[in-house]
Amino acid sequence: MEKVYIGIDVGGMSLKGGLVTVDGVILYKTSIKTNASLGVEHFLNDIKTLIKDLINWGKENGYEASGIGLGIPGLCNPKTGMIDYAANLHMEHVPLIDSLKEFGLKCALSNDANVACLGEAKFGAAKNYNNVILLTIGTGIGGGVFIDGKLFEGGEGKGAELGHMIINVDGYLCGCGNHGCYETYASASALLRMTKEAMMKTKDTKMWEYCENDINNVGGRTAFECAKLGDKVANELVDAYVKNLSVGILNYCNIFRPEIVLIGGGVSNQGDFLVDKVKAYCKERHYGYKNSPEVEIKVAKLKNDAGIIGAACLVMK
Amino acid sequence: MEKVYIGIDVGGMSLKGGLVTVDGVILYKTSIKTNASLGVEHFLNDIKTLIKDLINWGKENGYEASGIGLGIPGLCNPKTGMIDYAANLHMEHVPLIDSLKEFGLKCALSNDANVACLGEAKFGAAKNYNNVILLTIGTGIGGGVFIDGKLFEGGEGKGAELGHMIINVDGYLCGCGNHGCYETYASASALLRMTKEAMMKTKDTKMWEYCENDINNVGGRTAFECAKLGDKVANELVDAYVKNLSVGILNYCNIFRPEIVLIGGGVSNQGDFLVDKVKAYCKERHYGYKNSPEVEIKVAKLKNDAGIIGAACLVMK
Repeated sequence: MEKVYIGIDVGGMSLKGGLVTVDGVILYKTSIKTNASLGVEHFLNDIKTLIKDLINWGKENGYEASGIGLGIPGLCNPKTGMIDYAANLHMEHVPLIDSLKEFGLKCALSNDANVACLGEAKFGAAKNYNNVILLTIGTGIGGGVFIDGKLFEGGEGKGAELGHMIINVDGYLCGCGNHGCYETYASASALLRMTKEAMMKTKDTKMWEYCENDINNVGGRTAFECAKLGDKVANELVDAYVKNLSVGILNYCNIFRPEIVLIGGGVSNQGDFLVDKVKAYCKERHYGYKNSPEVEIKVAKLKNDAGIIGAACLVMK
Repeated sequence: MEKVYIGIDVGGMSLKGGLVTVDGVILYKTSIKTNASLGVEHFLNDIKTLIKDLINWGKENGYEASGIGLGIPGLCNPKTGMIDYAANLHMEHVPLIDSLKEFGLKCALSNDANVACLGEAKFGAAKNYNNVILLTIGTGIGGGVFIDGKLFEGGEGKGAELGHMIINVDGYLCGCGNHGCYETYASASALLRMTKEAMMKTKDTKMWEYCENDINNVGGRTAFECAKLGDKVANELVDAYVKNLSVGILNYCNIFRPEIVLIGGGVSNQGDFLVDKVKAYCKERHYGYKNSPEVEIKVAKLKNDAGIIGAACLVMK
């Protein structure tokens, strides 16, 4: 039987799983609804149900599931296999890997953004690169760091928290308790805040029309779509957002000097319109240094499958 | 003959060299004045003269120099052995390692802050630690990163530029061309600027007396010494500086989650008085995360020898 690897993308409301080949292809994908707030036992049972489904599908179709990798939306320790703290799951100190012993398979976990970075580096937009930074722009900013062909997770898996780099010492309060974290300026949530603020300042922007005059309709695309239509306020807004996003990228270039920085998450759907602006901002600043290698900036590729494929990569040889 | 290693701490005005044992002990230390602005050839000749002196001293005393390591105040590429750009040396594109072929020894170079970090990790305050961040606080802020028991230099040796992380998006203009870099807030130069600004605002501080009423006498110790005397303005100033310094440390904890952060350079002479305040600031912010390992913060130990010892470490097996 051909060996395949189980990748599980763990969320507080759903569990997504897939059987992934050594070439990074998802053969079979499934998901179940869960509710992390119902408690650890319930949650672990849902994960086990998903795993059994995947293993069975494999057996029926001639594939042997040879390992289980999990991407966790929170802090976890790859060495102990524990979920140490995951606010979205309302959980801490959960011995996840230990609880999967019954399957007799190699099991591994990592933070969801780390896992996505691993997937992109192995089979996505950074395939064949050895030094990669991934920024997943969503409600917050998740980060993944791939150095010398390996995932870098930091001590006890608590590094690579790239959304929590302070870029404005006395800036906005962040969910982590500090002020001015990168994600309070460059996440999708930050973009929404900035969009609403700009709209509240003036009626003279197409953004109001785009939102049918209801500020509750503002979304991550509002500013971008109106900027593309030539709206001045929206363009200024996009430039301000691009600056915030780029400052973090410049910082990570100076800190890691990777070969490539990938932008993932919903905002990355803006594609070249966004990336070209980010590149222009960064280039103007020489990425901080003279005679330094230019860092490529691209959009991540695996989209919603990054979690499954990346998690499976944790247990591939 | 016992094998020893040559470590050279390259500066624009002086070259310091030493013969270092496998145990990190400097057996013999020497230096020569140079003047980098006289040009590359002159400069390389000075380096060669220093190396010959060290090799000869070794021979005369029963030691065999088995490698040459150099710490460079600027951007250099460990793989090509080139100095790519060093503003302080007024040099770029200098094939330093190639020019040392005549010695027939293993040669290696790295950025001076990287080298200092390596020295501290091998033989200094972070001996026996595998994951170390060094911040050298001087005119600017140099940074070194040691991951999994190895120096991390980033692509083409251009990473670990820890002084050029932007911590205030629209902050002070930095020498690198960007605004708000860490070193514009937490270097010794920044401390001097802050001290002078505070003194210009009020005469009601012991700092004036400490400087004999001449603002040109302000030094890196002014604020600290007067704070220790209980001066209110000086204490507020030290707190503001500690905040700036700590923000960068918090960021590097979230990015790397090292086991230990070392503070080197002149400011680190304040020892526990400084470190205790930094620790308190960081601890209050949980280093950013719940259930994350606490990162040790200590003063670097090798002081002026860090460059020589660290450079020698580059060529030790």
